[in-house]
Amino acid sequence: MGIKVGIVGATGYVGEELIRILCQHPEVEEIFAVSRDFPGTPIDRVFPHLRGYVHLEILDFEAAPTLAEKTDVVFFALPHGISSSLVPKIFNKGKKVIDLAADFRVPDLAIYEKWYQVPHGAPDLLPEAVYGLPELFRSSIPAARLIANPGCYPTGALLALAPLLKHGLIRPDSVIIDSKSGVSGAGRSLNLGTHYPECNENVRAYSVAAHRHMSEISYYASRLAGREVGLTFVPHLIPMTRGILSTVYAELARPLDAASVRQIFKEFYEGEVFIHITEEGEWPQTKWVQGTNQCFLGVTVSNKKQVIVVSVIDNLVKGAAGQAVQNMNLLFGFPETAGLATPGLYP
Amino acid sequence: MGIKVGIVGATGYVGEELIRILCQHPEVEEIFAVSRDFPGTPIDRVFPHLRGYVHLEILDFEAAPTLAEKTDVVFFALPHGISSSLVPKIFNKGKKVIDLAADFRVPDLAIYEKWYQVPHGAPDLLPEAVYGLPELFRSSIPAARLIANPGCYPTGALLALAPLLKHGLIRPDSVIIDSKSGVSGAGRSLNLGTHYPECNENVRAYSVAAHRHMSEISYYASRLAGREVGLTFVPHLIPMTRGILSTVYAELARPLDAASVRQIFKEFYEGEVFIHITEEGEWPQTKWVQGTNQCFLGVTVSNKKQVIVVSVIDNLVKGAAGQAVQNMNLLFGFPETAGLATPGLYP
Amino acid sequence: MGIKVGIVGATGYVGEELIRILCQHPEVEEIFAVSRDFPGTPIDRVFPHLRGYVHLEILDFEAAPTLAEKTDVVFFALPHGISSSLVPKIFNKGKKVIDLAADFRVPDLAIYEKWYQVPHGAPDLLPEAVYGLPELFRSSIPAARLIANPGCYPTGALLALAPLLKHGLIRPDSVIIDSKSGVSGAGRSLNLGTHYPECNENVRAYSVAAHRHMSEISYYASRLAGREVGLTFVPHLIPMTRGILSTVYAELARPLDAASVRQIFKEFYEGEVFIHITEEGEWPQTKWVQGTNQCFLGVTVSNKKQVIVVSVIDNLVKGAAGQAVQNMNLLFGFPETAGLATPGLYP
Amino acid sequence: MGIKVGIVGATGYVGEELIRILCQHPEVEEIFAVSRDFPGTPIDRVFPHLRGYVHLEILDFEAAPTLAEKTDVVFFALPHGISSSLVPKIFNKGKKVIDLAADFRVPDLAIYEKWYQVPHGAPDLLPEAVYGLPELFRSSIPAARLIANPGCYPTGALLALAPLLKHGLIRPDSVIIDSKSGVSGAGRSLNLGTHYPECNENVRAYSVAAHRHMSEISYYASRLAGREVGLTFVPHLIPMTRGILSTVYAELARPLDAASVRQIFKEFYEGEVFIHITEEGEWPQTKWVQGTNQCFLGVTVSNKKQVIVVSVIDNLVKGAAGQAVQNMNLLFGFPETAGLATPGLYP
Repeated sequence: MGIKVGIVGATGYVGEELIRILCQHPEVEEIFAVSRDFPGTPIDRVFPHLRGYVHLEILDFEAAPTLAEKTDVVFFALPHGISSSLVPKIFNKGKKVIDLAADFRVPDLAIYEKWYQVPHGAPDLLPEAVYGLPELFRSSIPAARLIANPGCYPTGALLALAPLLKHGLIRPDSVIIDSKSGVSGAGRSLNLGTHYPECNENVRAYSVAAHRHMSEISYYASRLAGREVGLTFVPHLIPMTRGILSTVYAELARPLDAASVRQIFKEFYEGEVFIHITEEGEWPQTKWVQGTNQCFLGVTVSNKKQVIVVSVIDNLVKGAAGQAVQNMNLLFGFPETAGLATPGLYP
Repeated sequence: MGIKVGIVGATGYVGEELIRILCQHPEVEEIFAVSRDFPGTPIDRVFPHLRGYVHLEILDFEAAPTLAEKTDVVFFALPHGISSSLVPKIFNKGKKVIDLAADFRVPDLAIYEKWYQVPHGAPDLLPEAVYGLPELFRSSIPAARLIANPGCYPTGALLALAPLLKHGLIRPDSVIIDSKSGVSGAGRSLNLGTHYPECNENVRAYSVAAHRHMSEISYYASRLAGREVGLTFVPHLIPMTRGILSTVYAELARPLDAASVRQIFKEFYEGEVFIHITEEGEWPQTKWVQGTNQCFLGVTVSNKKQVIVVSVIDNLVKGAAGQAVQNMNLLFGFPETAGLATPGLYP
Repeated sequence: MGIKVGIVGATGYVGEELIRILCQHPEVEEIFAVSRDFPGTPIDRVFPHLRGYVHLEILDFEAAPTLAEKTDVVFFALPHGISSSLVPKIFNKGKKVIDLAADFRVPDLAIYEKWYQVPHGAPDLLPEAVYGLPELFRSSIPAARLIANPGCYPTGALLALAPLLKHGLIRPDSVIIDSKSGVSGAGRSLNLGTHYPECNENVRAYSVAAHRHMSEISYYASRLAGREVGLTFVPHLIPMTRGILSTVYAELARPLDAASVRQIFKEFYEGEVFIHITEEGEWPQTKWVQGTNQCFLGVTVSNKKQVIVVSVIDNLVKGAAGQAVQNMNLLFGFPETAGLATPGLYP
Repeated sequence: MGIKVGIVGATGYVGEELIRILCQHPEVEEIFAVSRDFPGTPIDRVFPHLRGYVHLEILDFEAAPTLAEKTDVVFFALPHGISSSLVPKIFNKGKKVIDLAADFRVPDLAIYEKWYQVPHGAPDLLPEAVYGLPELFRSSIPAARLIANPGCYPTGALLALAPLLKHGLIRPDSVIIDSKSGVSGAGRSLNLGTHYPECNENVRAYSVAAHRHMSEISYYASRLAGREVGLTFVPHLIPMTRGILSTVYAELARPLDAASVRQIFKEFYEGEVFIHITEEGEWPQTKWVQGTNQCFLGVTVSNKKQVIVVSVIDNLVKGAAGQAVQNMNLLFGFPETAGLATPGLYP
């Protein structure tokens, strides 16, 4: 007898990815999927690739609050600003919530409202939320009842920065994060910028030094460093579906060679099954993590002064649904890799 | 205690795909991987996406014959003409063999030598080989000791044609198969035609009415029909990595409407877990089968006369490694879906 | 002193392509661009790739009728059903019109209304329209005042079929056209089917045996043959931006070998600068025509019985804007290659 | 009567691009193409997209020295280390040379031999070479006889950095260049890293802080700054054919806002027809320069301290063949845009 889970926002890419992972999860007995679109439709009519694997009918969005009675945990995969008004209806009934939107990530109302330009739907729940990036903040997760699942860019960037910040190895105002994301990160909603002929055979920067994820990265980078971290973040859209590669640059606070920094990374992430530090001369590729919860980190030092870290994740897995399931595993005391132990596709 | 399996040709795309599937297979205890390239190298240095999932070191090609002692079954994922000289060394020791090359697919030496232009390495084993397309020829597989795993194009084409041919619904000389394949079908060996700038943003026909798979399709189409089937086969290379879509055209022998033909397909494949017949107006997409052993078939009739069937498979899974594992399951009495029950990636 | 041209619908892909070609045309003095979107905006804000090459401001859609006073010829690059109500306002003032929508292509009101399911906006002009496929119907173009520019699929298909139909070489009821199109053919309007993550790394058939272009191909194929031609047409969407490859199959009415058919094609298109017949074993690729008005045709015969023709065009050039300019050249007595003499991009 | 030009290395991507541009050049009368591959073959058999536009037969590589008699200028599009041994045979006969390899770019033998690890073929000609980046070093080009055409990465990076360095606006040791290149930059030679299934749907960093172009960028950045410039350069390979986007980061030496820096860029490049500074909020895309000699630069400032410049070029045009023709125009006193005035393809 496993647990029962709810997914609100089941027909976006993150919602679908949650279903894909949870339908194979050894501890999950039943899935309830809610969506504003396609209510009453079998999920395999919306996502035929699930045919033969999952049998469930999409529930009407109005039914979301009733998940409190039917399930043990509810995942919210909704745009920011929407989930925070719904989360209390589950949380206040005593059920666990894993929110994949931005609303509960930074426990500072002013930061949220400045960057997202909407009022927060449940500011009183902010103190309850725990930031669910297990490799960096695992200890506080099992006892939480409301998990704020990290953004895709913050996940890749913070995993790259953490060993440097925790050990005080870099000048905190020298951090530059240059990220390259596949198009699925922009979701399933239509937009000229994600229209095939516009982004195929094309690369562009966007939200230069102004992307909302910058506030999230800054907040947790500062927490890891124990002091204010100033950073520059520039995301780019590249012509592929899945994956984020982040190239992180920072000035070393004291001279170190590449081998030493690599060793520090290996020790920092020792025992972490989802994190791999590449060897000298081996640089991570997003194709290595396609469909998995893994993160590869490659490290070097240029001129004994400039450290360069390259991280890759699958934006929909470690950057969203996979990490959410990893958090669920921690919440319920399951093995952390439960449901996440399948290798990815290559090529 | 599961079985032990060997893979000869482990570092091509099909070999890698076998490892990906078999390392998760509930009945497989140990994998031995042999390759001419990278002997002595850990597999996760060649294929970093397997890091954390599989621990094995590539064995030298010379060690291939010793797999007869170490394993219960050996998969050969080698170019045609090479495996047939190695297969006897395993087969004659009483072990089972699943060959993914073309050498044992058509049990007619003349056809093989005409189309492949090399002498056959083990003509005396031809009568032992069973064509491993379970949905069409399942009954003879469990007792076999040498499985000839079908080609990627033949798999998609024959699944589309079988209900029509078995029921005598089409004129046997009217069959046209127009296939569109992703580039991974051409393997991991380098070639100007699969150099990225040459095949990105490009589509082309190749081996027009002269592709070697035509002999294999013809042979089994004729066997299904119980008479000689003449067919035209044109493969095309399209800018994607995985997947084959085949559009099959044939003239009906007697008038039928689309609903009737669809119903015949549904009955023909009733109970087949890997085969799905789409509903009216729903046309299969290769993305629906990315990474899985599934095949979707869409059917319609134009002018009561021309039947059109669209089939999609993942060329590396149902078109190669997945089907090989499905055959292994039948050989050993495992559930047919063992190791093949994970939904694919979307988008 | 060159001519002045108007473009109505200037901010779709076809409109933009007209501007790209016409701004380099040696006989064009001035361009007026009209669009419902972006009125008052400089064209190089909408299409920055034109910056430095064209200086013009987009005119409001309401200004379309005034083009009759300002220009010598007006191109309409609008969705079907819209241009036919605007065309008379230009045509009746004595100016020439080149319409790139479907409205005037088939001079049979019943066929139009059956396939397009809208009433026709100017049925009385249908007899004035000339189908602008110069290589097949050149003689009637120079004297025309209203050109119906062919659809993208019909252009590639009819060029492949014409030598066979005109010479009576094939059974007229045996024609199958299997087309593979890049995504730009679907235009710049947003649609889930052309959202990048949905069509990248994917291929699918659509409008199977039901695409509107089938009526246009049938009509002109029948005219070329001098008798009713029954045909099956299945378009496919493939993950690239530009280009259409059509594979055309038909049964020969009498036995012929490949060399003979190839020779017939060469003679049929002798002197046509935009048409190239490939040599034996050389099969056309869409990348060969990227950005140009060219069409390559490859021909073979299978079993002396089945003829196979592969044609490639750039759907936005020979399949739309380039052919429209070719028609303009004929209307005004300019060299037929004027503005169309630049080689395409490769790779 | 125009000039006669030779191209040595005509069948790589850069060689082909030179032919595409030069065959349309109003001042070029004849082209001689030399290649080690395909001697005696018509160019349009190797590159069918040129059929109908260019008629020439590839000359044997041994004929390269004879170009001194037949031509006015010779372009060398060969791998580094090869051209420098051939260049003197043309140069010493008094003809002009434009070399697209790295051999003559940095006039310091030690730097060349350190980074390229081969002896230089013509060290005595190094003082003759002029670095052909017209927008930055135009004045010395017309009188030169040997032009070293800049690398693709250096072109995009130096155009982004020049206004900052010349005006002393940035701390010279703070420069970071994060570049994203299409795959054609790796040339037409086969390599596992450019095999379609390996680089499609994938992004990776390579030669991290160790790419050879770093020495070239450093050398000219220092010359522009009038002092030593330390920089970090990380190139990335992304799944598209053409284009380089470079994101350049540097710390301002004194506080400046984005508008001021943008204004400085506009003034710096005033009158440069190939350079465009984008407006606030408009960020360059590689698709805007596909097939053209243009460069777009977008500029902003983060926290009054960190300047960010995004530059895009087509690596084969402004990054290679187009800039070479721009240099030829300067050498012969032709209009600088001759042969380069055609807008690019979009989408």
